[in-house]
Amino acid sequence: MRMVDIIEKKKAGEQLTKDEIKSFINGYVKGDIPDYQVSALLMAIIFKGMDATETFNLTEAMLNSGDTVDLSKIKGVKVDKHSTGGVGDKVSLVLGPMVAACGVKLAKMSGRGLGHTGGTLDKLESIPGFKTRIPIDQFIKQVSDIGIAIIGQTDNLDPADKKLYALRDVTGTVNSMALIASSIMSKKLASGADTILLDVKFGDGAFMTNIDDARKLAQLMVDIGKHFGKDTRAEISDMDQPLGLAVGNILEVKEAIDTLKGNGPADLREICFASGSTMLLQAKAAQSVEEAKNLLQKKIGSGEAFNKFEQMVKAQGGDVSFIDNPSKFPVALYKQDIKATQSGFVSAIGAKDIGLDAMKLGAGREKEDDRIDYTAGIVLNKKIGDKVNKGDTLATLYTERPSFEKIAKDIYSRFQISDKPVQVHPIIWDTIK
Amino acid sequence: MRMVDIIEKKKAGEQLTKDEIKSFINGYVKGDIPDYQVSALLMAIIFKGMDATETFNLTEAMLNSGDTVDLSKIKGVKVDKHSTGGVGDKVSLVLGPMVAACGVKLAKMSGRGLGHTGGTLDKLESIPGFKTRIPIDQFIKQVSDIGIAIIGQTDNLDPADKKLYALRDVTGTVNSMALIASSIMSKKLASGADTILLDVKFGDGAFMTNIDDARKLAQLMVDIGKHFGKDTRAEISDMDQPLGLAVGNILEVKEAIDTLKGNGPADLREICFASGSTMLLQAKAAQSVEEAKNLLQKKIGSGEAFNKFEQMVKAQGGDVSFIDNPSKFPVALYKQDIKATQSGFVSAIGAKDIGLDAMKLGAGREKEDDRIDYTAGIVLNKKIGDKVNKGDTLATLYTERPSFEKIAKDIYSRFQISDKPVQVHPIIWDTIK
Repeated sequence: MRMVDIIEKKKAGEQLTKDEIKSFINGYVKGDIPDYQVSALLMAIIFKGMDATETFNLTEAMLNSGDTVDLSKIKGVKVDKHSTGGVGDKVSLVLGPMVAACGVKLAKMSGRGLGHTGGTLDKLESIPGFKTRIPIDQFIKQVSDIGIAIIGQTDNLDPADKKLYALRDVTGTVNSMALIASSIMSKKLASGADTILLDVKFGDGAFMTNIDDARKLAQLMVDIGKHFGKDTRAEISDMDQPLGLAVGNILEVKEAIDTLKGNGPADLREICFASGSTMLLQAKAAQSVEEAKNLLQKKIGSGEAFNKFEQMVKAQGGDVSFIDNPSKFPVALYKQDIKATQSGFVSAIGAKDIGLDAMKLGAGREKEDDRIDYTAGIVLNKKIGDKVNKGDTLATLYTERPSFEKIAKDIYSRFQISDKPVQVHPIIWDTIK
Repeated sequence: MRMVDIIEKKKAGEQLTKDEIKSFINGYVKGDIPDYQVSALLMAIIFKGMDATETFNLTEAMLNSGDTVDLSKIKGVKVDKHSTGGVGDKVSLVLGPMVAACGVKLAKMSGRGLGHTGGTLDKLESIPGFKTRIPIDQFIKQVSDIGIAIIGQTDNLDPADKKLYALRDVTGTVNSMALIASSIMSKKLASGADTILLDVKFGDGAFMTNIDDARKLAQLMVDIGKHFGKDTRAEISDMDQPLGLAVGNILEVKEAIDTLKGNGPADLREICFASGSTMLLQAKAAQSVEEAKNLLQKKIGSGEAFNKFEQMVKAQGGDVSFIDNPSKFPVALYKQDIKATQSGFVSAIGAKDIGLDAMKLGAGREKEDDRIDYTAGIVLNKKIGDKVNKGDTLATLYTERPSFEKIAKDIYSRFQISDKPVQVHPIIWDTIK
């Protein structure tokens, strides 16, 4: 099977066979097939697509390209969730402990932030001592013992995705449904959970800017999950403005702690309760959404959800005194309020730009090896729909970098203020199962 | 200017600027831009195309990517021709000496054969001693002295094309009009001639299988040539059956000698006279096609065309005793006639397959570093339109390889015999200028 024939076949719009896909993935991971042939094939896939069968086969070849995680030693239902990423998305930090407190098991592998999006690992590592690289048997033991662990992807998990992802990034071949879906799902399936919940975000700050694409991607991923025998569901959620109020690592950890204590921003609470309910239903830990929500509420109210977070931090080497007393966290050297110069109603907050502004303040990475300032970021004081009076604080920036005046102006410009009241849509637009 | 942005722009179907194209070509030749980004861009070009302006700019960037040949020291009009290649195409060996005998100067760089197509360099090298690599000043002196030289491409001529061509071959990105046209024309323009005649072949044995594509390619190349101020013309010629009778290196040299002596197959004579006339008109060595044809006929009749070939062979180190006495050429160890098993009229001879059959007999290369048997090949005894009686020889194969029985059967199967007489079209279907 010659790679050039596989490329020509896809270029002609034909369906690749399972063997062809397997030979391409295995040859690529082994180093027998060079990057330049793979990037040509990827570009042909961009133009000609892959049907469901091809996407299933691609996912299978990828997930089998390296080690897979065996969670069978952990008793009970192992749930997993994945967000397609956005700005201010600290859901895993809240949702994970909430569902673990209800007795389901979350053995989660997360990623890092790049560009305007943050990453769960970076947020967790802003807690002094927190380790996201731990041996796999220790990871499994921790989930068995306390019901939750969040770590980085193990080295040889889905090596095909690692190579393809890096190549797609520099060859203009990112935006293919089949490639995105197989990338996400191969990792999730290799991670070994019994159920998968996908949070597919759409809007300005998300990878998918429109809801139709988000729905298509969600449906494709749900189909893949089902094809491999997993209870897979998806939520379509809004990422037109940052999620919650905080954007930046320590700032988001503090917001997560607030939310675990029963406070926190409404939209973050809303999505955590919705996702949590779905995960409890998937794990059969509740029979109805209402029952699930009540259970989650109880675990928040009783402090068990917060305690679960503490247990995880402790188990992964983090200093829990910061969790117990978040005022211990270091605060950025510079802080500046951004004020409204007119009254009205917030009609838009450019999520992607806020994410990039936060990155420039030091909260994120422009390139993969950039260092993060954990204290840096932005805390919104107003969200879409909120009434604003002239002089009100719209947001506050935090940074270690002295030349933030330009960024302060930029953050101001991300807010659109309307004369008229603005309708606010619930954060979750749709669910697919 | 980031290469990934150039890729994204072409992927979106936008026109690349001159600077973008130049930066991609120069970066690629320098090694700053990796193969994997270039192959992704090439695949995007396959799907989105390049308009005339982009193609002109690509051609310019390529031709300036290395050395260009300065033929200004050679007096008179320097003509050049290029064939898109086919099976049995020994035109340069006949046409070159014909036009040189008429006083125009041909400083030609040719290529080698691969797969089903032969190459002029291989054919010339089948003459003992013939050198196709000579220093550029000696090349120019030879053209000044005797009016003709045919050599291989110099090392640093159009390095962009060398890299792109090799990459396209293994990434399924060969069949783009813009890429094909710029590849051919950048080399021709870098070779420095004043006029260019393109023989664009179509049909089973050609790169372009249908006449519409051949016309489009020819028009694009003529447009490129004119854009760079060169008198550029094109012929669209038939490659549905091999050109002439001989396929294979020594066999073709012998046929070329026959034709230079006023004999040779009708279709080969026809194309040599047609192309020769055009080249004489381009060089203003004749005022009309009729005058040109008469002049060419005179040079054949007087033996001057043949003498010109002899002069070239001698100048390039070849043993002219083989030219004067072609029976001196070695003959293949094995020879077998392929006989007709029914009577009728030849309606088709699969040119590509005949080319591949000849390759398998040893006359060509499957891979670039394969060795050629100069004696191997096929000589047709019947061409399309010819009447055949059962038992007639359709073709004769020549090979050094003992296991040729299967190939003999294959060659037989390339001939289609019809009950009814078959109309034969002139070999040149169209001319574009």
